[in-house]
Amino acid sequence: MSKDRKQLLVNSLRRLVRRGATVHLRRILEKTRSEDLASAMEEFLGGEARGLFAMLLEDSQRAAEVLAAFDHTRVVELIADLDPAQLGPVFDKLAADDAADILASLPEDLRASILAVLTVEDSVDIEELMQYGPDTAGGIMNTDLFALDKEMTAREAIVALQENPDAEVVFYVYCVNEEGTLVGVLSLRQLLLVAPATQLKEVMNSEVISVPLTMDQEKVASIVARYDLLAVPVVDDFNKLVGIATVDDVIDVLQEEATEDMLKMAGVVEEAAARQSAVGSARVRLPWLLASVGGGLGAAFLIESFEAYLIQVTILAAFIPIVIGLGGNVGVQASTLVVRGLAMDQIDVKRLLPALLAELKVSAVIALVCSLVVACAAFFLGDGSLRLAGAVSTSLFVVMAFGALLGTAVPMLSARLGIDPAVATGPILTTSIDLIGVFFYFLICVTWLEL
Amino acid sequence: MSKDRKQLLVNSLRRLVRRGATVHLRRILEKTRSEDLASAMEEFLGGEARGLFAMLLEDSQRAAEVLAAFDHTRVVELIADLDPAQLGPVFDKLAADDAADILASLPEDLRASILAVLTVEDSVDIEELMQYGPDTAGGIMNTDLFALDKEMTAREAIVALQENPDAEVVFYVYCVNEEGTLVGVLSLRQLLLVAPATQLKEVMNSEVISVPLTMDQEKVASIVARYDLLAVPVVDDFNKLVGIATVDDVIDVLQEEATEDMLKMAGVVEEAAARQSAVGSARVRLPWLLASVGGGLGAAFLIESFEAYLIQVTILAAFIPIVIGLGGNVGVQASTLVVRGLAMDQIDVKRLLPALLAELKVSAVIALVCSLVVACAAFFLGDGSLRLAGAVSTSLFVVMAFGALLGTAVPMLSARLGIDPAVATGPILTTSIDLIGVFFYFLICVTWLEL
Repeated sequence: MSKDRKQLLVNSLRRLVRRGATVHLRRILEKTRSEDLASAMEEFLGGEARGLFAMLLEDSQRAAEVLAAFDHTRVVELIADLDPAQLGPVFDKLAADDAADILASLPEDLRASILAVLTVEDSVDIEELMQYGPDTAGGIMNTDLFALDKEMTAREAIVALQENPDAEVVFYVYCVNEEGTLVGVLSLRQLLLVAPATQLKEVMNSEVISVPLTMDQEKVASIVARYDLLAVPVVDDFNKLVGIATVDDVIDVLQEEATEDMLKMAGVVEEAAARQSAVGSARVRLPWLLASVGGGLGAAFLIESFEAYLIQVTILAAFIPIVIGLGGNVGVQASTLVVRGLAMDQIDVKRLLPALLAELKVSAVIALVCSLVVACAAFFLGDGSLRLAGAVSTSLFVVMAFGALLGTAVPMLSARLGIDPAVATGPILTTSIDLIGVFFYFLICVTWLEL
Repeated sequence: MSKDRKQLLVNSLRRLVRRGATVHLRRILEKTRSEDLASAMEEFLGGEARGLFAMLLEDSQRAAEVLAAFDHTRVVELIADLDPAQLGPVFDKLAADDAADILASLPEDLRASILAVLTVEDSVDIEELMQYGPDTAGGIMNTDLFALDKEMTAREAIVALQENPDAEVVFYVYCVNEEGTLVGVLSLRQLLLVAPATQLKEVMNSEVISVPLTMDQEKVASIVARYDLLAVPVVDDFNKLVGIATVDDVIDVLQEEATEDMLKMAGVVEEAAARQSAVGSARVRLPWLLASVGGGLGAAFLIESFEAYLIQVTILAAFIPIVIGLGGNVGVQASTLVVRGLAMDQIDVKRLLPALLAELKVSAVIALVCSLVVACAAFFLGDGSLRLAGAVSTSLFVVMAFGALLGTAVPMLSARLGIDPAVATGPILTTSIDLIGVFFYFLICVTWLEL
């Protein structure tokens, strides 16, 4: 749905709600795809959205689809006032993984009252899923899977498929032995191609790629992406098939993780920051900025301690911004390359030294060019003082080299220590470059200018 | 494949190549998945990798799989020395979209000689695909699609499927009318569920989501992600079905675009920067840093023009880093939220004013907290001067507000002007905050301190 079409939908819904034109509304609700409806309803305030969702409740399948597509962290706005008894049929229609995700984001009491009205089978499935960390294979998998005994024939398999129209859409047929252990896989298409009397074990591929329940979702996503899978089976410690993670969940993971990394690098820990109240959003963004305040204050103390020299050569103040600014910028470039390389599995965290050397070479070239430009500017600003130009540009070169090394080392070391490199890099880089930058700048200038 | 297993594979291959143990090598090559082999071979130097690939050429299907999984921008290292006649069968086995991608990255003469040895049918397909921009639906689609006449029965459709084992894996069966116009879709599974005599047009879903040939690949990816599709049909201006973009291509697009946005924000235009020579990589990273040099030099000139005041109150120099640093940082936070929000279709580019107001509220809270902390520090560093503390913290507040507004406005305005927001934001933000920061800092301090 293009942005224009979405705006049109939002406007029409809003107008019809205001007019109370329920017949028209119902017609629009029927004609619109659930994903588009969810996306439009996210634009509404709580009350309006709740009214629309109440109309959808008549068709619990439809309501479930909208609920699944609605931003999970905001579902509570939609259903807070509703009677749990009305929500039961809707949650029964949800895929267990979506239901578990949504329930996990609800307040404790609402969650309990919804679980209480669910069919026993569904609530067991969902409570089981809620045990797994939301960022693991167990957290994103679906348990409505379709697995067949490897001794079955193709004909029997097709009959079994036809008799289970409600099972999660399948593209692969997983084959298990009598203990439920995953032993093979074949595609729905292969099933159509073989003679009806063929046993599944004769045609299945027994080298199945599977993931353990506890595997991190980012890792699961990278496996699905690497092998171009449409779904990957999730197994427990005994290789028993317990669920499948499908490619649509994996796409969500990839988008989520890339967004997270970008925001973390800029010191915004949660994506929700964009949608929270001013104070809530500020709280999410403040920690990193306060780290930066710390670095800046450290730099202020350092500059103050060099005050005696500043009085003699006030022009020294003029180049403080460029030296620490460029040191920080070249560090951000290096660290972004490393953080993204780590996330994409392109960088080996154990090979720190070669990475540092490579980055040092690149930054030497970069720093040389920048230093030469700044040397010329310093020559003119300093009324033709070659000494000043030499001192300023040399310190710029040194600080940029430090920036590049820190930008490479900090994310790699934090990854090795098991700390999220995207979170750690921003604050450490900012604070340390401010301090190192000012320190080396004054040290080199004071020495060279013989102050 | 975990990093440890990959390292193991790389080491074994390397050892066997060195020893010339071809029997062992052949056994390992047979047992390893093509994707893993490609990933391991990317670690080798040109000569070693070429030797391994030459061994794979005996099985052209296998060689094609490895080639498809190999980093396309580096394929030339693998095949530069090979006889085009040997490569013909391999390229014939590649999916047309992969073949077109790989050929596009080869030097002109090599490309021509490979196209010359392909079967006519394949080379026509590939040359057709190469016409479309690599970042469009046409550029990522596959033309080996499976479309059936809507008048067919389910039984006939299954027979047609069975008779075309070589067509691209299908999860959806697309239905066309006699002109080849896309009129409906049904899943492979639905095909199994209906009575054999049912005509496709009776069961197909006629509201097919399709994309035009020229649609940007990022847009295609967001449609596939939003509607949880496994593939989306690509149509020409007359709604004729010309190809399908499958979810595995879309995953590549999502990863690529997220990486690109992150790197662009840090002023690294191409991902390849990580793998180029030091000078090549430096050239990719320099433009943004030179913009930052410009801003820094502007700031230096400004500071120099306030020299008379600096001589009177040298402590003013101490707070320059923190004021422009925090202005820049809060701007980066705001712009990262906007750039990612735009990429994820969460932010409406037309609603600049509400976005600015929202960001202004958040940054007011953030700036207030930071200013108070800095005011305390300035009070002590300035030997108990309340005036200095007031002037420094007020200017910090003002500069942070400017940073937040620019961080929101620059990406939104550049998106509206059709400029990539991720590329434009970094340099404009850095340069302008340096200048605005120094200017307002001195202006406010000089006025308040009555210098």
